[in-house]
Amino acid sequence: MTMTPEQQAEIDEQRAAPRETLRTVSEGMEKHLYSAIPVLDHGFVRVIDYMGDDAAICQAARVSYGKGTKSVQNDEGLIRYLMRHWHSTPFEMCEVKLHVKLPVFVARQWIRHRTANVNEYSARYSILDREFYIPAREALAAQSSVNNQGRGEGLTDEEAARVLDILKGDAARCYDHYEEMISGDGQAGLARELARMNLPANIYTQWYWKVDLHNLMHFLRLRADAHAQYEIRVYADAICQVVADWVPFAWKAFEDYRMGAVTFSAQMVACLRRMLAGEEVTAENSGMSAREWREFEAALRG
Amino acid sequence: MTMTPEQQAEIDEQRAAPRETLRTVSEGMEKHLYSAIPVLDHGFVRVIDYMGDDAAICQAARVSYGKGTKSVQNDEGLIRYLMRHWHSTPFEMCEVKLHVKLPVFVARQWIRHRTANVNEYSARYSILDREFYIPAREALAAQSSVNNQGRGEGLTDEEAARVLDILKGDAARCYDHYEEMISGDGQAGLARELARMNLPANIYTQWYWKVDLHNLMHFLRLRADAHAQYEIRVYADAICQVVADWVPFAWKAFEDYRMGAVTFSAQMVACLRRMLAGEEVTAENSGMSAREWREFEAALRG
Amino acid sequence: MTMTPEQQAEIDEQRAAPRETLRTVSEGMEKHLYSAIPVLDHGFVRVIDYMGDDAAICQAARVSYGKGTKSVQNDEGLIRYLMRHWHSTPFEMCEVKLHVKLPVFVARQWIRHRTANVNEYSARYSILDREFYIPAREALAAQSSVNNQGRGEGLTDEEAARVLDILKGDAARCYDHYEEMISGDGQAGLARELARMNLPANIYTQWYWKVDLHNLMHFLRLRADAHAQYEIRVYADAICQVVADWVPFAWKAFEDYRMGAVTFSAQMVACLRRMLAGEEVTAENSGMSAREWREFEAALRG
Amino acid sequence: MTMTPEQQAEIDEQRAAPRETLRTVSEGMEKHLYSAIPVLDHGFVRVIDYMGDDAAICQAARVSYGKGTKSVQNDEGLIRYLMRHWHSTPFEMCEVKLHVKLPVFVARQWIRHRTANVNEYSARYSILDREFYIPAREALAAQSSVNNQGRGEGLTDEEAARVLDILKGDAARCYDHYEEMISGDGQAGLARELARMNLPANIYTQWYWKVDLHNLMHFLRLRADAHAQYEIRVYADAICQVVADWVPFAWKAFEDYRMGAVTFSAQMVACLRRMLAGEEVTAENSGMSAREWREFEAALRG
Repeated sequence: MTMTPEQQAEIDEQRAAPRETLRTVSEGMEKHLYSAIPVLDHGFVRVIDYMGDDAAICQAARVSYGKGTKSVQNDEGLIRYLMRHWHSTPFEMCEVKLHVKLPVFVARQWIRHRTANVNEYSARYSILDREFYIPAREALAAQSSVNNQGRGEGLTDEEAARVLDILKGDAARCYDHYEEMISGDGQAGLARELARMNLPANIYTQWYWKVDLHNLMHFLRLRADAHAQYEIRVYADAICQVVADWVPFAWKAFEDYRMGAVTFSAQMVACLRRMLAGEEVTAENSGMSAREWREFEAALRG
Repeated sequence: MTMTPEQQAEIDEQRAAPRETLRTVSEGMEKHLYSAIPVLDHGFVRVIDYMGDDAAICQAARVSYGKGTKSVQNDEGLIRYLMRHWHSTPFEMCEVKLHVKLPVFVARQWIRHRTANVNEYSARYSILDREFYIPAREALAAQSSVNNQGRGEGLTDEEAARVLDILKGDAARCYDHYEEMISGDGQAGLARELARMNLPANIYTQWYWKVDLHNLMHFLRLRADAHAQYEIRVYADAICQVVADWVPFAWKAFEDYRMGAVTFSAQMVACLRRMLAGEEVTAENSGMSAREWREFEAALRG
Repeated sequence: MTMTPEQQAEIDEQRAAPRETLRTVSEGMEKHLYSAIPVLDHGFVRVIDYMGDDAAICQAARVSYGKGTKSVQNDEGLIRYLMRHWHSTPFEMCEVKLHVKLPVFVARQWIRHRTANVNEYSARYSILDREFYIPAREALAAQSSVNNQGRGEGLTDEEAARVLDILKGDAARCYDHYEEMISGDGQAGLARELARMNLPANIYTQWYWKVDLHNLMHFLRLRADAHAQYEIRVYADAICQVVADWVPFAWKAFEDYRMGAVTFSAQMVACLRRMLAGEEVTAENSGMSAREWREFEAALRG
Repeated sequence: MTMTPEQQAEIDEQRAAPRETLRTVSEGMEKHLYSAIPVLDHGFVRVIDYMGDDAAICQAARVSYGKGTKSVQNDEGLIRYLMRHWHSTPFEMCEVKLHVKLPVFVARQWIRHRTANVNEYSARYSILDREFYIPAREALAAQSSVNNQGRGEGLTDEEAARVLDILKGDAARCYDHYEEMISGDGQAGLARELARMNLPANIYTQWYWKVDLHNLMHFLRLRADAHAQYEIRVYADAICQVVADWVPFAWKAFEDYRMGAVTFSAQMVACLRRMLAGEEVTAENSGMSAREWREFEAALRG
């Protein structure tokens, strides 16, 4: 990540001036405010604002006049109960606003999560910076031979070098041309809304993204998952750190009942029961397809 | 509104303990936090939490690193521009959480606004209080003879007395029976989730309601409007006061471009142009239906 | 359910006039169109319109020009894969519109599912019918002693008789008064929007409810579940029949991977692995709370 | 638009086989089904499915058992009333599913409309076609000197030729490199999810997009507007034709009360009243900013 001195100064200034509030304060979150967590080569995640904490989840679940929290133990128990039984609305009572810098092809996946508020840097109005995501050597991988939408083995050094040359060269050339088109010697220059179409999908964009905790956890469950593309997963991972500091009870419940949990199908549960009763269950007598059986075995292995 | 001493003590305690935060603070909103604005005979609106202020709208619109605001004049101009040109996403960057006590029939209208987060007091889990909305004498009105879904003239004293007697009597009797059913001498009592079906729609319920500023203003435009039912309009009016103190620039723009604005149809605009050119335009030569013409005349009269 | 001869005639007329279309047709759904499935004493569910079928799910998942389906076996496999791996968007490509008649307290739970379109019969504009939900004898149960928001044992005959007397008596009296208030001898009568506040929550209302298949299945998972209140569960059960006929592959996948599936927490999965390895796992050495352990044992028992 | 013979054959096959249905049928929409309306150089809009028609809007507004429509005149009047008074839910009762082929930079604007269902062609799973949007000569324009996010004057021939050379050259080179990276002589080839990052934003993608009529009209109001970027406006214009044939009454009301309507601010309405009373109103005595006054004058001029 390349943070300019001006940008760093703006962040420092924001962090230097605490003010008084009567609102709920999460100490774990205050320490994150405005600081940038680096992601990929030029990206970041920054917490701009937040609302609520673990206690606010309990307060809403209890619809209370006062703080609505009881003993710490009671509160954690309530949060775990709510998570386990899919009571999602109390988690919607917390909200976070992030400033994210990310490659366009990551932004295109991210925006599919519709229950959020977004303000993106406008390439109709402004000129995009010359910043492109160029994968680290170890992130380069071949198309998976077993999973049609994933990565398989790493590339050879030679192949990797060839790929990196292409990505760097095309990015540089396309950006040079973008600049040439909008500058237009002696005239207004091509409209920005048109010129941007020449920029490849690894250029960085930025947005403000605001979301409630329930929908954020849904995003994290899908995007911090091993099946998610690496380039969005690292953003999800960065946000996981933030959430763990912000709402520690909710985070622990989320880890236990969502991230680390396993959903077994009706057929899988039936097999489990037979296995626990001492029966020998095989792919053949399981009633599952070959693919489901493989997934079942993998889940039991962990 | 009947606030118990215990509830008032909880509110006082919350207001007594300011804490430090690095977040944006709206002074106008801090003064509202936790205090209850009375609405109808037992209802209220209380601000529980908020995120953002006028500056946060500008900051998001500019996707900035720092505060993102410029001069006060620039910020107000930007907010007015955004409102006038239907740029809704920057307004979504502010959020508010309210605790509302309201009659069930008002809650049923309110909940139709879907883009919000809600936790309602559960009548499956808890016992509802004996609190019913009984309209003030001057709120009682006859069915409108011109508008199929509104009120017309006030009731005579005799008629009003009869209505109030009915409402009070039925509320008291239904609640007595509710209590009898759930108490059940010598046994567990009828399940609460069943017993509640005996309660009329003027019983009070409570909820936590969280919404972003854009969707809140949409709610206010519809519900603080003269066509809205009086009993929801008074809640909307109370929230209008809160918003005016929270985000004064956005509120002023909202008043000018939404609440006080008038949308003229294509036909109406054509007539306006003819009128300004000195032509005599009448219902007959206007190209509008009788009803549209009446609405047009009313809009011009104000 | 009391369907008037006029209503039945309208339904018969709609079913009598097939027309030609180029759209996808689900034969299983055509047979349901307009017919009312009775629910509770006066309620029903009627299919008014639908869009898509199993093939449409595959077509969207493949973003195809033509029908987008391959062999029947391939299609079923794809649908099961999508369901298993939480690919929700293809299921959003099917849509259904229902006409539902239901008690108000059920409507209040139902409306919490926000991702749907609703038009409810307006009690500001129209007069509600004299129809109330009076539970069948066997549906009356005491408050559960173990679950704070559920039902426990059935009532004694005497207790049940007392409850039914109350419910019938209060419904009748409240409705009589509603009629008296709105009729108002010699004047316009109390505005309907006010008079309705006297009606208890077991009065029936009606609405058109339109929802996509993904969100419908989410609704069914929560509301056809054993923890849902009986009075909404019977509506969910009725809709389950409809979905099974409409999109049989999706329905089977939904049964296997959602309704019949079990989600085990991280701790539960760890215990499962130990048990399958032959270890004796007890509540004490499980790392779970007492409540979680009970839920774990229940899940394994089935 | 380049439609392959295979694709055309698939479309012809779909249009050749009408089936019987009991559902509402819109004749105006049946004629559009599956046929592609060309947009830009390679894009299109195709209607894949629809639900409802003008009568369905009235039926839902009336929550009726039968067809719910009365005389044609009544129905049109009701639809105009609903539109004029912002009753949006009846319009949500119609739904349409489109297959759209569009450049990525257009898709990025389009997706910001969140209340819709989308399945996009996956560039993780599949290989994108070599198809890029290259603007027609007359669509090339300079950055506007008055509007920061729009186009101004056309380019000179020389400038236009230079721009087209750049766009064509970079698209071809980037695509060549994309192919080289994923083919990878003698190995699996770079993962598709990585290789796609080299493709510029004028490459075409495709999706299935499903939306209700209310939200579609909101999309059209913003995107068929003169301020929208030309490249998305032509898609909105194509969809306008479809809607006009599908629901002619709703379309006419939409034209009169939304597209052709003008919203005047509180200040503008006050000025209008003064002008109609014969007063001379100028920028100076109007109480508006210079910018608002210009917009007011423009609205009155038409």
